[in-house]
Amino acid sequence: MSSKYRESGVDIDAANRAMKRIGEHVKATWGKEVLSEVGNFGGLFELPKRFSNPILVSSADGVGTKLKVAFLSGRHDTVGQDLVNHCTNDILVQGAEPLFFLDYFACGTLDPEVVADVVKGLAAACGENGCALIGGETAEMPGFYAGGEYDLAGCIVGAVDRDGLIDGSAIAPGDVVWAIPSSGLHTNGYSLARRIVFDEMGLGVGDELPGTGRTVADELLQVHRSYLPEYRELKKRIEVKGLAHITGGGLIENIPRILPPGCSVEIDVSAWDPPPVFKLFEERGGVERTEMYRVFNMGVGMIFITNQGSEVSVAESKCRWEPFPIGRVVEGDRKVILET
Amino acid sequence: MSSKYRESGVDIDAANRAMKRIGEHVKATWGKEVLSEVGNFGGLFELPKRFSNPILVSSADGVGTKLKVAFLSGRHDTVGQDLVNHCTNDILVQGAEPLFFLDYFACGTLDPEVVADVVKGLAAACGENGCALIGGETAEMPGFYAGGEYDLAGCIVGAVDRDGLIDGSAIAPGDVVWAIPSSGLHTNGYSLARRIVFDEMGLGVGDELPGTGRTVADELLQVHRSYLPEYRELKKRIEVKGLAHITGGGLIENIPRILPPGCSVEIDVSAWDPPPVFKLFEERGGVERTEMYRVFNMGVGMIFITNQGSEVSVAESKCRWEPFPIGRVVEGDRKVILET
Repeated sequence: MSSKYRESGVDIDAANRAMKRIGEHVKATWGKEVLSEVGNFGGLFELPKRFSNPILVSSADGVGTKLKVAFLSGRHDTVGQDLVNHCTNDILVQGAEPLFFLDYFACGTLDPEVVADVVKGLAAACGENGCALIGGETAEMPGFYAGGEYDLAGCIVGAVDRDGLIDGSAIAPGDVVWAIPSSGLHTNGYSLARRIVFDEMGLGVGDELPGTGRTVADELLQVHRSYLPEYRELKKRIEVKGLAHITGGGLIENIPRILPPGCSVEIDVSAWDPPPVFKLFEERGGVERTEMYRVFNMGVGMIFITNQGSEVSVAESKCRWEPFPIGRVVEGDRKVILET
Repeated sequence: MSSKYRESGVDIDAANRAMKRIGEHVKATWGKEVLSEVGNFGGLFELPKRFSNPILVSSADGVGTKLKVAFLSGRHDTVGQDLVNHCTNDILVQGAEPLFFLDYFACGTLDPEVVADVVKGLAAACGENGCALIGGETAEMPGFYAGGEYDLAGCIVGAVDRDGLIDGSAIAPGDVVWAIPSSGLHTNGYSLARRIVFDEMGLGVGDELPGTGRTVADELLQVHRSYLPEYRELKKRIEVKGLAHITGGGLIENIPRILPPGCSVEIDVSAWDPPPVFKLFEERGGVERTEMYRVFNMGVGMIFITNQGSEVSVAESKCRWEPFPIGRVVEGDRKVILET
């Protein structure tokens, strides 16, 4: 049958083929709480009985222009991990455990293999975070996206019991600010990074990124870390009074989001050495020091705030990436002061 | 201060200005269940106590290429309504009431006025559907979207008590299939529609769309209807055994999604007159009759299935758009048979 719809750029059959390929990845993330089937209008999720007074915590995000590095590299199985881990961290800062995730994938022309790789990444990270990939939309939008390009966004829903909710209100002057290391840029600052690396330095994705010992693709596609296992480890031993996910806006804009009135934070930037990629961007990109800390994570993926005297307990926790102290809470008006 | 990040195409200050403008629209949708503030990492929502055994029902979707008509028309306050109503209908088919919504807005260059209009539309529909606009992501992605263009997607989370869940399993041969009228194309078939209207017919958005009595913009930007109030009305009077939201794939592909094994549906296409826009597309676009019913809703935005003998009760319900019978359930293998 001739199809006018296909001629106009939308191939429902290709979409159906893509759906079949991703079904098994998706179903692998489903526990007994998932009551729906692939293809249902809505995803059905039964709230686990372990929550006595559940607060649902949700967040939506996208991968941003890190996707451009994936396009150039032809690697599509990591960006889904970036997205799910990013969203997991966003609700983790309020103490929530992820329940389920829905994705939005939009492209000009649907390539079932690319979709399958993207969903493989989403499903891998959902599996690691104990989160069901319960739904999503795969949109073929002719004329919206350049050939071979796509956008990827998603939404996570988690839950926390009301008495486990972390809102930062317990934070007080004298508390210690800890950092947990990031892996590269995570998902922020890529428009500037791409400008420096591709436009100003003239590198390709297969070239070595000077000082990093990695290719551009390997360095810039490092997967955004999920700190859920770290948080679980830490809260066994210490009171976590606040967490901030270091995303767009960096340490400077993200930490104030959790500070109560009357508190600021002093960060001792000599307390750690930012990974080589950030030094490279500062030097080769001619980016001011303060802007570096506003655009990039500078090697810190998550911060958390504890009482003084928790050093031994933090050191004993079995975190995959060892936390280190970077500053303290002081009296002030919800600002971050960088000390050199 | 000079900003390398702004030079690379990302303006954090513009994003912050946009956030301020949308804050009041967003907050207007919040009831007492919302425990978070604008700017929190995650949106906090307390599950209402009226659910004794809640199943969370969620769906993600985008507006699709209907957005192109919005761009051409310079009208950005309806697409958010399309999106929220679409998602509301998607979870309604399982009997769920919406709780909260998160949006994803992505563009090349952020225009705070456009963002404010889009969010105004999202908030208006969230308000109408009793749904809190609890979070979202506004992404400025240089090099991804053409000037003045954006993509808009979102995710809805609702809930239904387990014993109110509608899964279509009660549907049986002899049942009646009812249609509720759509308003125009809703959000499906726009790639083909745009090709016919703009490329083949050579019309502009201000021109009259022949036979419709409306301009192209007015006809093609009609807001996707939410059938939540209709469902509430109907279920007071009758047993709704199944609902299907008529989206991409039309009557032909959406009805089977709710049919139990052993059931098909016969649709009498002479039972109603599709609105003029669909006749125009069929004639001027040279689209085959069967494809029309697969790509477009043909004037039916939602179908529901009841026992025989419910005619009087349906007629007495205070639906804004009067349901009409279009077919019946027969024995078969989960197919839709169009009868002329």
